[in-house]
Amino acid sequence: MNPRLRAFVGGKTGLWSVMSLRPVLGEGLPESGKVDVVERPAPSVSDGASWVLRGVTSHVRYSAGSERAVLAARQVDVGRPTATRAALIPIRKNAAWWDMPQDDRRRIFEETSRHITIGLKYLPAISRRLHHCRDLSEAEPFDFLTWFDFAPEHASAFEDLVGELRSSEEWTYVDREVDIRLAR
Amino acid sequence: MNPRLRAFVGGKTGLWSVMSLRPVLGEGLPESGKVDVVERPAPSVSDGASWVLRGVTSHVRYSAGSERAVLAARQVDVGRPTATRAALIPIRKNAAWWDMPQDDRRRIFEETSRHITIGLKYLPAISRRLHHCRDLSEAEPFDFLTWFDFAPEHASAFEDLVGELRSSEEWTYVDREVDIRLAR
Repeated sequence: MNPRLRAFVGGKTGLWSVMSLRPVLGEGLPESGKVDVVERPAPSVSDGASWVLRGVTSHVRYSAGSERAVLAARQVDVGRPTATRAALIPIRKNAAWWDMPQDDRRRIFEETSRHITIGLKYLPAISRRLHHCRDLSEAEPFDFLTWFDFAPEHASAFEDLVGELRSSEEWTYVDREVDIRLAR
Repeated sequence: MNPRLRAFVGGKTGLWSVMSLRPVLGEGLPESGKVDVVERPAPSVSDGASWVLRGVTSHVRYSAGSERAVLAARQVDVGRPTATRAALIPIRKNAAWWDMPQDDRRRIFEETSRHITIGLKYLPAISRRLHHCRDLSEAEPFDFLTWFDFAPEHASAFEDLVGELRSSEEWTYVDREVDIRLAR
């Protein structure tokens, strides 16, 4: 088992209660009352679940050294006791995105879409952890699963964050997105 | 099953006969007489095998648009009928490599180590296909599996190619490498 593998399990049990689950682009996901976040999931984790999404944390794909230094100074890990609100946002990007060479993807990701800059603006209030699914052994329905968490007083800042990202050029390459809001 | 997943199975059966199998850096692999290359491998592919290495083909991680255009004009797919010699070279890179931001890895990969330029120099004689293992669901023993194939008359050019790569700065980050030479 890859030690960086996580599963997000939608079903009847779990720490997190689903406040809303809605499709943003493309097909949605079945309703579920709870979401469980499982480290190093066993194959049996899907027993009785409405859905299971898997991903691995990995190395940075676009951040330059100068950007990563600023991020490292400001970011906090997910899981703070005060972070009782969370969002799980699975996305898939289209073939045109994956066919682009590295410099074109980087240019759209940061120089035009400001993905790193936008995330930075909401730190440390809104923590995030990115999970990659595209190169898992299984055929996965999404390319990325981003988990965000924050205190209830930062819920409106979170709306601003996702609004900024969704209006970016990068998002024109997203062909499936689901928005799952959670509370514990 | 990820449609881009491949397994390289060392055992008693397979199209390719092992001419040599030797550790270059770190631990080697058990001897095997044959290597089978399996598309979309079933879990049972490891039954009776000496070793099984898995990886997925994926999008480019470092090539810029200008480089990729030159590569695309010159490269040929692996599997040509004349390519009766092959090499499977699994490598693992150390934590220092994976901890670097994207721009530092790119700088070492191409600006100092000339990884893309070196590969290009031997095209179209030596074809290659890269498989990524680091973000599979399982804990894999290597980060990359590169499969090369070529006609017997290009065997000495292939020695030059691996020699150039192994003397590069990039290779100072490689902490495990096995060199498996094959013929069919």
